[in-house]
Amino acid sequence: MKQTRINKLFNIELPIIQAGMVWTSGWRLASSVSECGCLGLIGAGSMKPELLREHIQKLRKYFKENQITKPFGVNIPLSRGDVDELIKTAVDEKVEIVFTSAGNPKMHAGKFKERGITLVHVIASVKHALKAQDSGCDAVVAEGFEAGGHNGFDEITTFCLVPQVADALEIPVIAAGGIADGRQIMAAMALGAEGVQIGTRFAATLEASSSEAFKQKIVEAKDDSTALVMKKLNPVRLYKNRFANEVIEAENRGASPEELKELLGKKREMRGIFEGNLDEGELEMGQSSGLVSDIKSVKDVVNDLIQQYQKAAHNLKG
Amino acid sequence: MKQTRINKLFNIELPIIQAGMVWTSGWRLASSVSECGCLGLIGAGSMKPELLREHIQKLRKYFKENQITKPFGVNIPLSRGDVDELIKTAVDEKVEIVFTSAGNPKMHAGKFKERGITLVHVIASVKHALKAQDSGCDAVVAEGFEAGGHNGFDEITTFCLVPQVADALEIPVIAAGGIADGRQIMAAMALGAEGVQIGTRFAATLEASSSEAFKQKIVEAKDDSTALVMKKLNPVRLYKNRFANEVIEAENRGASPEELKELLGKKREMRGIFEGNLDEGELEMGQSSGLVSDIKSVKDVVNDLIQQYQKAAHNLKG
Repeated sequence: MKQTRINKLFNIELPIIQAGMVWTSGWRLASSVSECGCLGLIGAGSMKPELLREHIQKLRKYFKENQITKPFGVNIPLSRGDVDELIKTAVDEKVEIVFTSAGNPKMHAGKFKERGITLVHVIASVKHALKAQDSGCDAVVAEGFEAGGHNGFDEITTFCLVPQVADALEIPVIAAGGIADGRQIMAAMALGAEGVQIGTRFAATLEASSSEAFKQKIVEAKDDSTALVMKKLNPVRLYKNRFANEVIEAENRGASPEELKELLGKKREMRGIFEGNLDEGELEMGQSSGLVSDIKSVKDVVNDLIQQYQKAAHNLKG
Repeated sequence: MKQTRINKLFNIELPIIQAGMVWTSGWRLASSVSECGCLGLIGAGSMKPELLREHIQKLRKYFKENQITKPFGVNIPLSRGDVDELIKTAVDEKVEIVFTSAGNPKMHAGKFKERGITLVHVIASVKHALKAQDSGCDAVVAEGFEAGGHNGFDEITTFCLVPQVADALEIPVIAAGGIADGRQIMAAMALGAEGVQIGTRFAATLEASSSEAFKQKIVEAKDDSTALVMKKLNPVRLYKNRFANEVIEAENRGASPEELKELLGKKREMRGIFEGNLDEGELEMGQSSGLVSDIKSVKDVVNDLIQQYQKAAHNLKG
């Protein structure tokens, strides 16, 4: 694949980053992705600070025992109540790469930058991309409407977001949302991205810590199996299971944010993704789930991505 | 640009099709696009059968007077009450290429195919793409959520729709939705498309029959200026002007399809696009409006597209 500023920024062979995903991207997934020459992220979204520390230490132990010297990172959602403790944990553990999402990077960027930590923020509009750049971020992830899990309010798609963000910024852009396949990596590069962040495809791997039932649901999903819901609260893309359909129905009758909050209740993500409760849980996945037809090892996924990319490059010449 | 089955199917130099757009794509826009080596379409969506006949005849007269021998086509929305008359008009006038949208192609395909007319249907999901292929269509337009004007119910984006449709079909796929720029043509090709359909960028040209005020609004639009509304009725992507914001508010409070129909009233498209009533009209445009920064001639737009495509090809090698 093309070498870009993203390869240099993280010192990685392939400009592919695995997204931080709740109940999915622990030390095992992140280390496997990094081992393959991409950048793995431990997703702190579903971790208390102590658990995050444990995952960082386990990853480092595994790397040490296997004489692996690859970079890895941590994803921290800035919307968390205990965000300061999560940041302190990452800093204490001397994590060198941090991806932040779901919040204002300006408030926290200094804590990372003054320690020389590489900082990337996830955005979903040009306005927020410019704010991230102004805050001192080294790159942004431009995440489109098709992405799984939490998402922006403006519903801008990867196809439209990436070129507009690339035009507006000096720092490099990582495309995210809808990418499960090497053709799409090539397309993202054509749009001006210098790297890609991939979630759903890496969730359906042997190394992901999510439940087998959830992974199987990704495989079953078709092009039209997901929907963006909870738009009055905190938009999230879910597989349209019983719970998601209940939300859609409530939204259609004009449910208030309070009613939606009540309907959401607690720990839906854990129930769906980790426990595999396919009816009652939140099954966070992207529209790219329609492109995922098997559960396989991270290594096999990365090999597929490379081959699909090369095939797309060949076809474009045609 | 890469030569594909779409070039051959229509006998065009560039695999670019101008979308049929209400109050925008009359004979003047369509002929200008075809003159530049792309495929221009007369959009029958806002025309009575007699007006369609007039536009076809005017285009032919212009071509004859200027010794132009280029193909052109007509777009017919199958949802129209007078669809049979529109089809009869196109057939009587010996139009050789027809694009159909917004309906079931199976019911009408035979009327075109038995006369050797090249038929393309616009779809927004894999299921409908397969139906179009089974109906005997020669190609499909796979139109993503980001597209302006009327849109599918499943909200599948160009980035996710195109590769899934390309994988599912034997016939060639034309990508649509969000494309205003040559980088995006390259990206669409990487995703498996063999051509692109472009609406909004061609609406902001000197030759489009829409009002100056509407064209100016396309230029003003940013990445987050449009929204898909009327989802309970007939989803349509609009610039978020006063009318669109009223619809969004009504939808948020759970308005019924009947209430939305009442709110929509009559001739909103004409008022917005043709008459330039920027507050009360429907301003149909795609998310790609954020990428359009000037009103220029079709020829200049096509030259831009070629140059941007070539630049993207060069960058991909890098």
